[in-house]
Amino acid sequence: MRCDVLAVGTELLLGQIIDSNSAWLGEQLAARGIDSLLQVKVGDNTARIAAEIERLLRSADALIICGGLGPTHDDVTREAIAAVMGVELRVDDEVADRILEMFASRGRRMPQNNLRQAQVPVGAQIIAQRRGTAPGLICPVEVDGVSKVVFAVPGVPHELHEMCERAVFPALAERSGDPAVIVSRVLRTWGESESGLSERLAGVIADLDEVGNPTLAFLASGWEGLKVRLTAKGADTEAAMGLLEEYEERIRFELGDLVFGVDDETMESVVLDLCRRSGFTLGAAESVTGGLLSGRLTAVPGASDVFVGSVVSYATEAKRSVLSVESDLVVSEHAAAEMAEGARRVLNSDLAVALTGVAGPDEQDGMPVGTLCVAVSGPDGLETVVRTLRMPGQREPMRQMSVITALDIVRRRLESIGD
Amino acid sequence: MRCDVLAVGTELLLGQIIDSNSAWLGEQLAARGIDSLLQVKVGDNTARIAAEIERLLRSADALIICGGLGPTHDDVTREAIAAVMGVELRVDDEVADRILEMFASRGRRMPQNNLRQAQVPVGAQIIAQRRGTAPGLICPVEVDGVSKVVFAVPGVPHELHEMCERAVFPALAERSGDPAVIVSRVLRTWGESESGLSERLAGVIADLDEVGNPTLAFLASGWEGLKVRLTAKGADTEAAMGLLEEYEERIRFELGDLVFGVDDETMESVVLDLCRRSGFTLGAAESVTGGLLSGRLTAVPGASDVFVGSVVSYATEAKRSVLSVESDLVVSEHAAAEMAEGARRVLNSDLAVALTGVAGPDEQDGMPVGTLCVAVSGPDGLETVVRTLRMPGQREPMRQMSVITALDIVRRRLESIGD
Repeated sequence: MRCDVLAVGTELLLGQIIDSNSAWLGEQLAARGIDSLLQVKVGDNTARIAAEIERLLRSADALIICGGLGPTHDDVTREAIAAVMGVELRVDDEVADRILEMFASRGRRMPQNNLRQAQVPVGAQIIAQRRGTAPGLICPVEVDGVSKVVFAVPGVPHELHEMCERAVFPALAERSGDPAVIVSRVLRTWGESESGLSERLAGVIADLDEVGNPTLAFLASGWEGLKVRLTAKGADTEAAMGLLEEYEERIRFELGDLVFGVDDETMESVVLDLCRRSGFTLGAAESVTGGLLSGRLTAVPGASDVFVGSVVSYATEAKRSVLSVESDLVVSEHAAAEMAEGARRVLNSDLAVALTGVAGPDEQDGMPVGTLCVAVSGPDGLETVVRTLRMPGQREPMRQMSVITALDIVRRRLESIGD
Repeated sequence: MRCDVLAVGTELLLGQIIDSNSAWLGEQLAARGIDSLLQVKVGDNTARIAAEIERLLRSADALIICGGLGPTHDDVTREAIAAVMGVELRVDDEVADRILEMFASRGRRMPQNNLRQAQVPVGAQIIAQRRGTAPGLICPVEVDGVSKVVFAVPGVPHELHEMCERAVFPALAERSGDPAVIVSRVLRTWGESESGLSERLAGVIADLDEVGNPTLAFLASGWEGLKVRLTAKGADTEAAMGLLEEYEERIRFELGDLVFGVDDETMESVVLDLCRRSGFTLGAAESVTGGLLSGRLTAVPGASDVFVGSVVSYATEAKRSVLSVESDLVVSEHAAAEMAEGARRVLNSDLAVALTGVAGPDEQDGMPVGTLCVAVSGPDGLETVVRTLRMPGQREPMRQMSVITALDIVRRRLESIGD
């Protein structure tokens, strides 16, 4: 089965917005065994949108159109689809009522043009709106005597994701004559390169290549970690989940504690959860990362019940005055340990993590760019852990990788206590 | 003139990489008055790439292809172009020598497949490689008796940018029969909405609409600020720059100190430069932003000679113990002032900026989500400035906007001293 993608919006062609929707759709379709061979951006122009729909449907079985469903006069996806279908647009009263209600419930007056969003090509099916005011559409289209389908969804990413998962992907699966249930799981890892993971998983990968289901993919995601995604297909949810769990277990057996989280869990959320479960508070002392680690931890809602704060001791003088660092060399394991212990004392936290290193452009204290020293102090009764590591040489990658690397060391300390 | 874009790479369709090249090209083409009406992603498949080239050139005058010029067997852009031109590929000795030299100069053995990159469709012109090993190509193509052109450039963004600016855009300008020089300048602003800026610039915009050159565009860029981009065209650089400067002056007159920087200057770099020029050091105390502001400042290479550090006092207890905050309400102007003064004392900096606020999900101290209190303490002899502002209600946008808003208050204090 082939499903192409048409992203609509002049702002995409002008480069004011980067089209990330089609990449997301491509990833999701691939995971479901559906080919997406052409993905096109077109402006807000009815004739050109219609021409692209016809052109793409000559080869593809289905087409997902994202964008152009809003209330303004340049949102013309509905008109273009109706033109291709050879039908007119009619107001759907149920959709109109829902839009009116949404405005009423927010206590706002509805600008009249919002009712444009209630217009539906005759013969199209509606995907009820949940997050925004525009509904999605499922439109049957006949091309050269073959029945094909166009899905229209809003361009706002979270609305698009929700509607695709709820209605578009299931409808595609049904049409493909392969009404299998697809489930997937991401195992997030840290501490091994992609080729290192491949090597550890060589046996599992060989077996998967043979059976063909589930499939496995590696996704390098910077300071989000290196993801291993398993996608399984089954006659029903139970069968698919069974397969998924069988291989997840095999992968976890091979990778052990390289796996730090599942699906949407991040290294930050995992560390905060581990602290929360143990009743520990966490502090930090940052030099080379200059606040990035704290910024990531506090991006997690509810971080405040665990994370007390950080001392960003960027200047050497600040390390000495606030954290009582005495080491001559401020990029050293000894300095990192002093920073962690100082932060724990000053912030009165159960644990503290410290980072000092060289992000460049120049080396420091004779240490090359990319050097990172991490220390974890606490909880009470345990010795301070120190590590020296080698990060990438460019400034921002160095700082970002330092954040996840340091948090991983905190995670390992917390997990070792839990054992 | 119309120039479409074809981005080549199966990894783009699978969503492993988001295609940002075509957005960049769209922006650059628009600035030069060239339409880009279709932008297509296609996989590493010779027949499909060739079919898209033919299809797009039926309507467009020119086509830029990015990607698929590498050394591996799935880099087939050269083959597809040769097929469309109806010619064969031949090794260009000069290109081959240059590739061999590049490997030799890095002391590395050249894998044989790298010579694939020296293959050139007969009749194509070469854009010499500078940053990578693959050269670009300028390929004349006849479509329905009309002479058109295909430009092929590498998919690596910095190689693509360099080659387009050096060879592709000038060649397009020449073909368009409009060999004008194009120059542009971005004025970065903070403190007004897009519609607010429009209103202030109504007179300038009306004049620009009439003369048509330069053109003006607004680009909302989150915590990068709201950008006003002027693009001028002239017979030579001097004429184009003259126009640019004339209108820049008019815009600056209308916007005054809303303009904080030009082109690549960021709010962070501007604040650091102002401090450096005055000989002041800077510290910070962050609550709601949890280290983000410090993380941004320290992303600027060389920040360490100005920025001494920060106290991320996320927990109330940390505000009291490290910064000696006594206010009962920790989201208040009074608390912000105490934080700034505390940070200046603890970090021994000339100035300190403090942020406290509510990022949500819940309100705090009776203050609604989106509330931000900022204080700037120092330099010696000046009263602490305090401000309460209303930021967006979602967590990350709230925190990011708080960073640029607070730095803007520091900028204004520093500029007022300079006067």
